Order: sequence, then structure tokens, then C-alpha cells
Amino acid sequence: MTKPRVGIVGGTGGMGSLFARFFRRQGCRVQVSSRRTKLTPERCAAASDLLVVSVPIRDTDAVIRRVAPHLKKTAALMDLTSLKSGPLRTMLASHPGEVFGCHPVFGPSLRRLTSQVVVLVPGRRGPWLSRLEAMLRSERAQVRRASAAEHDRIMAVVQGLMHLTSVQLLTTLRRLGIPLDLLRAFSSPVYRVRMDFAARILGQNPEMYADIALGNPATRRALAAYHREAAALEAVVKRGDRKGFLRMFLGARDFLGREAQTALGRTNRLLETLASVEDGENRARRASGR
Amino acid sequence: MTKPRVGIVGGTGGMGSLFARFFRRQGCRVQVSSRRTKLTPERCAAASDLLVVSVPIRDTDAVIRRVAPHLKKTAALMDLTSLKSGPLRTMLASHPGEVFGCHPVFGPSLRRLTSQVVVLVPGRRGPWLSRLEAMLRSERAQVRRASAAEHDRIMAVVQGLMHLTSVQLLTTLRRLGIPLDLLRAFSSPVYRVRMDFAARILGQNPEMYADIALGNPATRRALAAYHREAAALEAVVKRGDRKGFLRMFLGARDFLGREAQTALGRTNRLLETLASVEDGENRARRASGR
Repeated sequence: MTKPRVGIVGGTGGMGSLFARFFRRQGCRVQVSSRRTKLTPERCAAASDLLVVSVPIRDTDAVIRRVAPHLKKTAALMDLTSLKSGPLRTMLASHPGEVFGCHPVFGPSLRRLTSQVVVLVPGRRGPWLSRLEAMLRSERAQVRRASAAEHDRIMAVVQGLMHLTSVQLLTTLRRLGIPLDLLRAFSSPVYRVRMDFAARILGQNPEMYADIALGNPATRRALAAYHREAAALEAVVKRGDRKGFLRMFLGARDFLGREAQTALGRTNRLLETLASVEDGENRARRASGR
Repeated sequence: MTKPRVGIVGGTGGMGSLFARFFRRQGCRVQVSSRRTKLTPERCAAASDLLVVSVPIRDTDAVIRRVAPHLKKTAALMDLTSLKSGPLRTMLASHPGEVFGCHPVFGPSLRRLTSQVVVLVPGRRGPWLSRLEAMLRSERAQVRRASAAEHDRIMAVVQGLMHLTSVQLLTTLRRLGIPLDLLRAFSSPVYRVRMDFAARILGQNPEMYADIALGNPATRRALAAYHREAAALEAVVKRGDRKGFLRMFLGARDFLGREAQTALGRTNRLLETLASVEDGENRARRASGR
């Protein structure tokens, strides 16, 4: 059997090169097209059994329309963006063969797929969807299937709300005018983890976050709900309403249900890891006299 | 030299028993008084060189007033609560000898003090403040000194804002009506860490959080600022204002400054730890057929 040929348009970016390495480990011949390669997207498409489009969300539709006419009828087309409704529609309209969406729900700086979620969104049937699913599972990823609409509704919370409120947290700290160095010097481990993850998000591509924030109507609803709850929390504290505060707290705990049971053990493990990393940093800082 | 005698009122609670173990490791004779012991707070106070008050914030003032008259003049008195202005004032008014506040800025479920912050708030001079500081440093804790007012202003952010917005996050998810199981099944690692820490906070004593929320006037200001920024973020997204969003994002990143540089490495380490814990949980779940 000859090795399947996988082409990746945008394959020198973070997620594109992560998937290039992944498909090579899985025994595929991988070719990459990007601004830095001589190989054009069109020729990459023509020579692929599976073509992966891995470009920024706002460029995805245009790139799909550009490469699709060059695909073999038997080839499959997939994208890697964080939104699924728009790209899937464009892929279905542009290519008569197999089509599906793929969203790796993690950043490209992770070294392994173990326990990470990859969402697959079926479009038009063919052999590659199940083939990719088996490859991902062989590296212990958690593969989920969903419709594009369901995916986008869930991601409005998982990515939209969770990541965008980190931006809001930092703009709040800036307004309060307390220096971050002072806060960190007096910080709880929960604070340090929260700030490290906020910093991780803010270190990523702002344009990508603008696409996630503005390109998904469900994100707007999630942020509106978050705003209302911020108002409710402030009001309870402002009027010194102990019963109202306890009602909010216990309501939130009830809603968590089973999730709460295993969290203490997991977070203790994380805090022990963090403490040992920090202790190493503190020793290094003292040793270098900074 | 005889061993110093440390008494802990409330020494069977989480933080009280953590400090009982700590003082024993440090070579002190430790006696504990609580609802579960025969030893009364008064007799515990009378027999101590250092008396530690480790009871809920709302009971702290009353307990200080009750035990202080029984202390030796040469004894030191300290508390362990999350707020410092009120308890310090009460201690200074109730005991003519050495007095200081202590706030361990972490939860009692951690096994080691390594890299954890302990704030000491000087009240009236004596030998015990420096003695405790040296003991804490010998176990690699990070000891900070601050005035009570400075401590409370910082904690309004480090504990107030950081912890209370986890309550708000959960009440928002409840309003949105998307089941948590579904969100977790499609989650990013950042989401899972955020939710685990929210669950950690919600698993703790609601009365303690009510004390932190309502007992510190600076918390109200922090929550008001957070509410304003939630409104700003929602407005930017609602009107599809890409430039406005990028301005918020880049402003937040600028404000982070140096903090951003080391966050990616630290969070990658945490996410690798999390992935291996989760992978173990997933295997166990499959093995037990759940």
C-alpha cells in the first residue's frame, strides 16, 4: 500500500506544523504550502489525498475557494479553524468530494495530544473522517463529533467566555492601578495560576481572538450573561447582603455537582507542580543575584 | 533551653492544624484548644509563649477579647485570618504585649509551604515576629511584611476579585443552560484548569468567602471595576468593533509586561501535569466500564 499524501496549506504556522508532525508520525507523506514555501496552495491541493487548510479564520474562506478547484474528486478537504459553521459551508459549496471540519481545542505549544480534545464536524461522507479519528485516538486524544452549529454554540463558552474574560481581568487590574509585581509578591497560588493562564492567552495572536470574539454570535450572548452576573455580584456586595451572597455561592456549587468532587485532588497536583517550578525560579533568581 | 510553648485556639480546623504541625516540626511544644478539646481557650492562653487565634473571621474579635486577659505579659498574640485591619486593632487593644497579624495566602490542603506566601503584619514589637519569619523561611515559604491597610487593599484583588469571579463564572454558566458535562467533553485545557480552580474555591467554606466579600471595603471597589470592564467588553463585541477589541487586548498585554514572558513555560508544565492526571482518570474510567 502506498502512503497517503497529506497536504497542509499554512503548514508552517503553529497548528499547521503540529499537524504536519502528527501526520508524519502516522505514516503519511506530508507536503506543506505557505508563504515561506515554493510549493503553491494549488499544486499542494492537486497532489494530496487529504488537504488540510490551516490559515487564520478570516482567510479561511478565500483559501478554500482558491484551492478547491484543484483537488482530485477523490480527495478529502478539511480545515483547522476555531469556528466551524462558516468554513464547513464554504468547503461543501467548493468541493464535491469528502469534506469535514476539525478543531483541535488546544494551543500548538503542547507537545503531546494525550487527553486533548479534537472536535470533528462531519460534512460530506468519505473514508478520511474515520481514518483521522483512529489516528488521533492512537495518540490518546479525545475525539468528539458534533454538528457545526453545536460546536460553535459550545465554543462560545469554552473559548469565547473563558478566554475573553482573561482580557477583561487584566484591563480591570490596570484600572485599579495596583502594580502587578506587588500583587504577585502577595499572591495566593490560585491567583498565580489564574494570572499565568491569562498571560498565556494574551501572548497569543490578538487577531485570532478578535475572530473568535466577533465571528461567533453565541459569544455575544455568553458575554452579555457574564455582564449581568457581574452586576448581580457587585450589587450583593455593595448592599452587604450576606444571605444574597451565600445564595449565589451555594447556587454555583449546586450547579457544579459532580465536577466539584475531583477538582481538589487535581488542583492540588497542579499547585504542587507550580510550587516546584516557582521554587526553581526563585533559587535561580537568588543565585544570579537579581 | 526549654522548648517554646505555642497554643492554637481553633487548632483542629484546616489552617489551625496545618500550623500545629508546622510549629511541632519547628521544635515547639504545641497545645490546641477547640470545640473538640477539653482544654479551654483561657487555659490554653495562660500556658502559651505564643498564642495563635485560628477561628473564622467573624468570630475572631470575640475570641481575641476572651483569651487576651489570660495571656502572660511576655506572651505574643497573633491571628491567622484573611483580613488584617480589624483583628490587629482588636489584638492591640486587648493585649499589652507583642502582637502581630499573620495571613497564610493559600488553602490548608497544600502539603508543603514551599513557595507559598505568608504575610506578616507587625503590631507591637517583640521577639516572636522575627522568630516566626525565620521558621517559615526555613521551610521555603515566601514571607512578606505589610501594614494591615496595605494587606487588605491587596487582598481585595488577590482573594476578593480572583476568587469571587469564580462564583460569577459558575452562575453565568448556569444561566446559559449548557450542561457542564457537554462543556467538559468539548473543552480546552485552559477551560478545564479554570473550572477545576473554580470548583476548588466553591468547595471551600461559603461563610469564609462571605467574610472576605463583605468585610473588606476594597473588595467592593474591585468588583465595581470588574463590572465596568464586563460592560466594556460586551459593548465592543456587540457592535462588532474589531479595532476596539484589539485595543483592549493589546492594552491588557502591555499591562502584563514582564509577567507574560515566563507564563507560557509554566503553564505548559501545568498542562502536561494535568494531561497525565486526566489520562490516568480516563483509563481508570474505561477499566471500570463507567
